[in-house]
Amino acid sequence: MPVDDMDDLSLAYTPGVAEPCREIHAHPEQVFTYTNRANQVAILTDGSAVLGLGDIGPEASLPVMEGKSVLFKRFGGVDAFPILVRSQDPDDICRVMELIEPGFGGVNIEDIAAPRCFAVERRLKASLTVPVFNDDQHGTAIVVGAAFINAVQVTNKTLAEVRVVINGAGAAGIAVARMLLNLGVKDLSLVDRSGLIWSGRPGLNPEKEEIAQHTNLEHQAGDLTQAVRGADVLIGLSVAGAFTMEMLAGMRPGAIVFALANPVPEIWPVQALEVGAAVVGTGRSDFPNQINNVLGFPGVFRGSLDVRARQISAGMHQAASLAISDLVGDELRPDYIIPSPLDGRVAPAVAEAVARAALAEGLATVTDLDPKEIGRRLAELTGAQEKGGDLN
Amino acid sequence: MPVDDMDDLSLAYTPGVAEPCREIHAHPEQVFTYTNRANQVAILTDGSAVLGLGDIGPEASLPVMEGKSVLFKRFGGVDAFPILVRSQDPDDICRVMELIEPGFGGVNIEDIAAPRCFAVERRLKASLTVPVFNDDQHGTAIVVGAAFINAVQVTNKTLAEVRVVINGAGAAGIAVARMLLNLGVKDLSLVDRSGLIWSGRPGLNPEKEEIAQHTNLEHQAGDLTQAVRGADVLIGLSVAGAFTMEMLAGMRPGAIVFALANPVPEIWPVQALEVGAAVVGTGRSDFPNQINNVLGFPGVFRGSLDVRARQISAGMHQAASLAISDLVGDELRPDYIIPSPLDGRVAPAVAEAVARAALAEGLATVTDLDPKEIGRRLAELTGAQEKGGDLN
Repeated sequence: MPVDDMDDLSLAYTPGVAEPCREIHAHPEQVFTYTNRANQVAILTDGSAVLGLGDIGPEASLPVMEGKSVLFKRFGGVDAFPILVRSQDPDDICRVMELIEPGFGGVNIEDIAAPRCFAVERRLKASLTVPVFNDDQHGTAIVVGAAFINAVQVTNKTLAEVRVVINGAGAAGIAVARMLLNLGVKDLSLVDRSGLIWSGRPGLNPEKEEIAQHTNLEHQAGDLTQAVRGADVLIGLSVAGAFTMEMLAGMRPGAIVFALANPVPEIWPVQALEVGAAVVGTGRSDFPNQINNVLGFPGVFRGSLDVRARQISAGMHQAASLAISDLVGDELRPDYIIPSPLDGRVAPAVAEAVARAALAEGLATVTDLDPKEIGRRLAELTGAQEKGGDLN
Repeated sequence: MPVDDMDDLSLAYTPGVAEPCREIHAHPEQVFTYTNRANQVAILTDGSAVLGLGDIGPEASLPVMEGKSVLFKRFGGVDAFPILVRSQDPDDICRVMELIEPGFGGVNIEDIAAPRCFAVERRLKASLTVPVFNDDQHGTAIVVGAAFINAVQVTNKTLAEVRVVINGAGAAGIAVARMLLNLGVKDLSLVDRSGLIWSGRPGLNPEKEEIAQHTNLEHQAGDLTQAVRGADVLIGLSVAGAFTMEMLAGMRPGAIVFALANPVPEIWPVQALEVGAAVVGTGRSDFPNQINNVLGFPGVFRGSLDVRARQISAGMHQAASLAISDLVGDELRPDYIIPSPLDGRVAPAVAEAVARAALAEGLATVTDLDPKEIGRRLAELTGAQEKGGDLN
């Protein structure tokens, strides 16, 4: 707001500002009406798993968090502020967020290393009244899920029949696995540095053991090459160069390969296509099918904040995934399974779908808002490019 | 920054953002170059002493903190973000700020009740690497000090001879007392709810005992009426209606009365003038001589942040005070002892003076910046109203 004369000053500051303070003191939920809290998200990190850079500490993670804030605002109209915690103790991280919750309408956990991020998310979901989301997990799962649905369709396969292998069982790998199971995938295996994961494999952390109970049901052992043999889909959430052409050559016809390590993927698209892959996706903007988290989190938070959702549930994640995949519609092709990150339709569609799911699940606090209106307002706010992006 | 195409996106987000992360990881001080940290201040509160409303809690204090952020930006070009702590335990408040320090270039403590605010400030000044300021204390002291210097001058009194009584010995009263002592006042007494304070009075908290060793040196006892008798200056940092016309009638000729309770002052200006006060100041914009903290904190932080001061010292506070009082210059009159809160010259002059003092005291980390340039840049940024405000 402008402060150009004494009236502005007395409104922004004392004495005018006393009125909303009194109102909120008497009716605490009015903080969502009289302040920016309803639109303010904390980006919570300890800087321990930043991009491919690893544990570079909170200060060095700030450029990533600031970039994320820019995208939150640009695509979701959400005000996001980095909270950089100088401690890798989950108790410290949670305690900080619990103590400063009053200023925020939601929390996005970012770049905290697994398995610590699981503990942080679990505790904060229970202790905070505002919704908590881990973009590294759920944001990735939403966008990979959207691309996955369309890739399966364009290759004339079915969700119930495809055989899927995920390489990488960190925060993202496990969340993607959960999403695919929720979408109806039956035959799914995860692979980590020690090879195929099965329930009971010695040394699994609790999250891996938990997902192992729903995956690789035949308890097969083996390395990545063995796991990939006969698979329909291979999803890499791992490291540069982890896939070889030989590996991919063993996949079934119409193979789907998502090589999402950034900036250098598990295998280059040209190599995957050469050994017969039908659909290839990466995290990069210079190839088709860019699977980028920016398709998810801005709309997820916009929808959740607008209905003041108490949580962001698995059902809301799935609704976001379906909304993104739906936008591709009739234009579905092997090299167009997911909208461009700059497609202005995406965040409004995601916001609407997420709000609708929150309402349906009884997780919304504000219940008199039409989800369509949420999408419409965001489209208006962000300029509603019809179908932006330089790849379509 | 705009994000309109893939190049913008790859710069704001992955992979472009990895570069500054690597730079900062290798050279930690570069966080001040590659991010907004150098311009980012935390407004730290527990909501326990908000305006005249008292302990209304963190949520209800948010409108005040948001208003403060607006003024930080408008007058100082500073990005300030409210950190609302849901605990009144000084250890919790400090621990939160220590853990989230990596995102901030400075801390402004706001509306934390005395004497807790003293403990919080003391600990954070020792534990943080970025400068810490308590606006309720030092901001008030800076602006009252500026008005005081000019009021003494316009009534032809001298700092060394005036007899000063401060009513209210909370955070603000004690900080104003320190400032006046530093400015050269010799005869100063503080009064709290139990009357005059003297060293050794039973039940004083450590801060009151400390200031008592430098004030009321004759160890006089008595109530406010007795304290005011024969005083030259009466400063109220207390509550509405605390001063009576009878009290003021006992002051020396050329009496100076600052009645700073807000929104209703200790005595209305018309009443003070009627019993012979020569100069009256209040916190209100609808009377002359508005003594408003907005004259101080934006410039104080601008100057401190630009030279990356390690602390904001008493010398820097005093430099700010003198810079504000100097701007009145030849126009000094009993009803113009302090510039208007909207006077665009103030924050640049304060920033320059504070930066100069930090450099002189060896507290600046950035030492190759001309303080004049700091003022010039801020004047340009904030539009450099020549002498705005509706009271001049």
